[in-house]
Amino acid sequence: MAQWTIYGDRQSGNCYKIQLVCGLLGFDYDWVEVDILAGDTRTADFLAKNPNGKIPLLVLPSGQTLSESNAIINYLAAGTALLPLDRFELAKVQQWQFFEQYSHEPYVAVARFIAKYLGLPEERRAEYQAKQAGGNKALQVMEQQLSQTPYLVGEQLTTADISLFAYTHVAEEGGFSLSAYPAIQKWLGRIRQQAGFVTMG
Amino acid sequence: MAQWTIYGDRQSGNCYKIQLVCGLLGFDYDWVEVDILAGDTRTADFLAKNPNGKIPLLVLPSGQTLSESNAIINYLAAGTALLPLDRFELAKVQQWQFFEQYSHEPYVAVARFIAKYLGLPEERRAEYQAKQAGGNKALQVMEQQLSQTPYLVGEQLTTADISLFAYTHVAEEGGFSLSAYPAIQKWLGRIRQQAGFVTMG
Repeated sequence: MAQWTIYGDRQSGNCYKIQLVCGLLGFDYDWVEVDILAGDTRTADFLAKNPNGKIPLLVLPSGQTLSESNAIINYLAAGTALLPLDRFELAKVQQWQFFEQYSHEPYVAVARFIAKYLGLPEERRAEYQAKQAGGNKALQVMEQQLSQTPYLVGEQLTTADISLFAYTHVAEEGGFSLSAYPAIQKWLGRIRQQAGFVTMG
Repeated sequence: MAQWTIYGDRQSGNCYKIQLVCGLLGFDYDWVEVDILAGDTRTADFLAKNPNGKIPLLVLPSGQTLSESNAIINYLAAGTALLPLDRFELAKVQQWQFFEQYSHEPYVAVARFIAKYLGLPEERRAEYQAKQAGGNKALQVMEQQLSQTPYLVGEQLTTADISLFAYTHVAEEGGFSLSAYPAIQKWLGRIRQQAGFVTMG
């Protein structure tokens, strides 16, 4: 029996973060596939586990639950090489993760959701177009850092890289071309070469 | 000379989080007031400090910079009573902080920004109205937890409470009535009674 149960959607970048961290760390887990569009996160049973009605959700053997993808991967990575011990570097990991949730995901992931999940319906086309500028701004911030260091926080791969890999590596599904971002492309390659790397899906 | 320099706006809840943590911990700092609407975060000098062009920004005596309000307060609170040592509780602090940035701030703080900073102009009235449902959903999630425990992560005040106090205590400026949330109101009172509490502004 696996130690952890993960509720998630295999096409979701936020859920993929957890699969990728578990792959890199060699952790076993049970997976429960959840269909957002079918309402699986709005049932009474699911809302009892996560009152915010979102995936991914981690359930511990004790029955305790943890939500928010970045909180989950930092929990799983505690005490491993994916999290720095240095106080400032650890804060930098969190800086990039909050950047991801506020300045990257709402543009890159939402544009991808509208195109890939919803099929770019006419009534959401303006919103999809409006997401492009914000997404490119976030990619430019990443490009600037990755032109200076191989990983977002410096020389070592951390959970910050996993958090931003999740939607950046499928950014083209949201209409974002990575051709203008050579440092990001090299960084994606560095992550794909890690031992234990798993693909999305 | 203070140890840290903070670039911020005294009316911003994200910036207030840092003032409040420094107050509770008795930390001294230098404050540099930044006017977003006047373009202070778009200057070359500021973008060199934070390529994402956002406040708050913490500058260490070494010149190193840290952005993202929740990353900053967790950095400042490292090793203090405001951050639990237990691995799961520490993850729960982060869970609530990511919830704040994704499910609370984009509704409660943005509605307040439109009303208080911009004076609720006609062309943003629909957006302001659209923010109300999401903000109330976030407040309901908080209410549910605070009906069970005095603070968001349990018995002790943590940086998660500071993160969510910042915009919740001024939610009425964004059109959100707290009268339906008695547990939130009591929790606001508990935080205001802490030694070292400072008001916003």
